[in-house]
Amino acid sequence: MGLMGSTTDEKEEAASSPMRTAETILRLVPMALCISALVLMLKNSQTNDFGSLSYSDLCAFRYLVHANGICAGYSLLSAVIVAMPRPSTMSKAWTFFFLDQVLTYIILAAAAVSVEVLYLARKGDTSITWSAVCVSFGGFCHKATASAIITFAVVACYILLSLLSSYKLFSRFSAPAISYPGKDIEIAGCQG
Amino acid sequence: MGLMGSTTDEKEEAASSPMRTAETILRLVPMALCISALVLMLKNSQTNDFGSLSYSDLCAFRYLVHANGICAGYSLLSAVIVAMPRPSTMSKAWTFFFLDQVLTYIILAAAAVSVEVLYLARKGDTSITWSAVCVSFGGFCHKATASAIITFAVVACYILLSLLSSYKLFSRFSAPAISYPGKDIEIAGCQG
Repeated sequence: MGLMGSTTDEKEEAASSPMRTAETILRLVPMALCISALVLMLKNSQTNDFGSLSYSDLCAFRYLVHANGICAGYSLLSAVIVAMPRPSTMSKAWTFFFLDQVLTYIILAAAAVSVEVLYLARKGDTSITWSAVCVSFGGFCHKATASAIITFAVVACYILLSLLSSYKLFSRFSAPAISYPGKDIEIAGCQG
Repeated sequence: MGLMGSTTDEKEEAASSPMRTAETILRLVPMALCISALVLMLKNSQTNDFGSLSYSDLCAFRYLVHANGICAGYSLLSAVIVAMPRPSTMSKAWTFFFLDQVLTYIILAAAAVSVEVLYLARKGDTSITWSAVCVSFGGFCHKATASAIITFAVVACYILLSLLSSYKLFSRFSAPAISYPGKDIEIAGCQG
């Protein structure tokens, strides 16, 4: 029994190491992407004959910068915690699960509002007399679009991360009683 | 053994019925909310001295209407499927999990872009000469705000539903091998 236990341990050690490495990488990738999107947007300003435009003039882009900053910080912190070979407790699983979900929603909302503002800036809206800003500030719009696309890549990473953390949390629970009423009746019939 | 089997069945039948009812209600509530948000936005148009404005003039609100329509349809369909006392298969759990997640992201994006457009319409943006439309079209903005708030209630319901469906799916899996290396070593030590 003792031998079996240690064999299981070795197996678990062997299995956990690549899984932990994979999760650490999956958390470091969005960190790099967040920083790229953040720097690209922070440096995004254009001055020409029409005036000057910077990311801080639009609340959607300010929100994008903040969301990417928070996301980069959390990604780094969570990657460090995952990389450490500590036992995974229930409270840690709940915290990762909760924060991964929240970050996914925050970063998705940031990407969505940025795309909406870029769409309005590109096409304009004649019925409410909003002009197509991108006609005058093409360079600004290009960089902002690149930043929004990178943010969507972050969203994809975070969707994967929230799937992973919900799997790691909920696989510890037993299946709900509702699961297989039909199958159970069948088994009971066979045994009776 | 047969008696034990049927007792378990009875327990499961008793436990599954309130759970199924609760899930059905949790799926019917967002359906009602989606239809309210959809009808409110569809009927939202205002004509005055400045001109006329309808929801279809803004792509964010057109997206909100479509998202709410899709969400209402899916909520009704999924509520009907959940309400039927059929055995829950693995493919059904995967389908619910996948679609609940997708719908959560779609409806969250719709709510976020609507709030962004409403913010711009209320405050305007002097640096890009976008006027504050809500000054001229107050009634339109009020109804659109109400519709966006209702959509956020739908988002809250769908966050709960996607938690529930990920619990129902992942609790069928066993915990990953990484879980408790420390605890396992302790048990092995006690047994050896």
